[in-house]
Amino acid sequence: MKIAILIYNGITMLDAIGPYEVLTQLPNAEVFFVAKNKEEIKSDTGFVHLNAKYDFDDVVEADILLIPGSSIAFVKVMKDKKTLDWIRKVNKTTQFTTSVCSGSLILAATGLLKGLKATSHWKPIDLLKNFGAIPVRERFVHEGKIITAAGVSAGIDMALYLVNEIAGEQRAKAIQLLIEYDPNPIHDSGNYTTCKPDIIEKAERQLSRNAKKDLSLFEAALNLKKIK
Amino acid sequence: MKIAILIYNGITMLDAIGPYEVLTQLPNAEVFFVAKNKEEIKSDTGFVHLNAKYDFDDVVEADILLIPGSSIAFVKVMKDKKTLDWIRKVNKTTQFTTSVCSGSLILAATGLLKGLKATSHWKPIDLLKNFGAIPVRERFVHEGKIITAAGVSAGIDMALYLVNEIAGEQRAKAIQLLIEYDPNPIHDSGNYTTCKPDIIEKAERQLSRNAKKDLSLFEAALNLKKIK
Repeated sequence: MKIAILIYNGITMLDAIGPYEVLTQLPNAEVFFVAKNKEEIKSDTGFVHLNAKYDFDDVVEADILLIPGSSIAFVKVMKDKKTLDWIRKVNKTTQFTTSVCSGSLILAATGLLKGLKATSHWKPIDLLKNFGAIPVRERFVHEGKIITAAGVSAGIDMALYLVNEIAGEQRAKAIQLLIEYDPNPIHDSGNYTTCKPDIIEKAERQLSRNAKKDLSLFEAALNLKKIK
Repeated sequence: MKIAILIYNGITMLDAIGPYEVLTQLPNAEVFFVAKNKEEIKSDTGFVHLNAKYDFDDVVEADILLIPGSSIAFVKVMKDKKTLDWIRKVNKTTQFTTSVCSGSLILAATGLLKGLKATSHWKPIDLLKNFGAIPVRERFVHEGKIITAAGVSAGIDMALYLVNEIAGEQRAKAIQLLIEYDPNPIHDSGNYTTCKPDIIEKAERQLSRNAKKDLSLFEAALNLKKIK
């Protein structure tokens, strides 16, 4: 089972590593972290440095394709013809094409979500409409062979669902135990639709602070007001 | 706030990246992935390649120290004097010293868990006794300034608790929303104490398969029966 995960500068690490940790336990899994060029890839925080060992010429097919999201960089990737063409090409060969968080926007930019229900991080989700997709605020959405997941940590739930689809319930349960995924957060504020407004406001402020590094891109994409 | 995360060959990526994604949202967070040597670090699956930009001489103090676990490599790290000495040295400067999964065994090997309750992944947890710690099967355990977490994904819950301790409830809730941590696994098999025996057996078989790469180490450490 060949699993290709797109990586790019500005990626949110957990978007990729959550699903990877689950999918790598599929029978005969081979995971390829693939970048436009074989080079060092820096995460959105600047604190993580990944070596991309495979580029778009090395990996042209996959059983599973995963497009992770990012704080801001997705806006740039959405306009990168070479990346979008690679996604379209690999998608032709997949059993499942998947995305996490704002990775769904990148997937939408390829045209592959046209007419489909899809989800993304709670902040940029409405932008899916610009590409003909129908945004739904769910943990993950399965349409045909495409599965989109909500923000960051949602990729773990999506990947366990995917294992269940591919390898059955017993395997999915065993992998859940392997990664001891018995979540027990001390608070209950992870769902945008039920979260209190003051927490949403605080999270939005943090997003803006994170975005300050490249504000022009962020504003262009999300049409935010200028941060004071 | 200076956060040091130990990385080493054979590391389980989600052990490190789960907490990292949470802790990096602390005010003025600076995260340092620190290895024994400045070199490329390969994950336990062999599929992820991290560049270590900092070594033990570069980072000698931290507000938070995190020791992630691994499938098998922890056994080797537990015997590595240079790594244990570095952990002891940094621990003298921390507000919190933390571990995830079998990272708790590495922490135990430094002597820092002596007489303390602690947790780890459900498989190697009883080995904590060999180092004078008291194993408890909980999501995470806070004793003094030390917090140990259960397997792999438990680091996310532990990190949100830690943010709550350091920066308060509002910040913890906002970060939970930022990473959209509203976990909703399709099955309920992530807890060892309530998991059905056939799933535990399947997970144990998978652990053995994962360990085949370096069986001698694994057997020596966990005293497993020979795999046929």
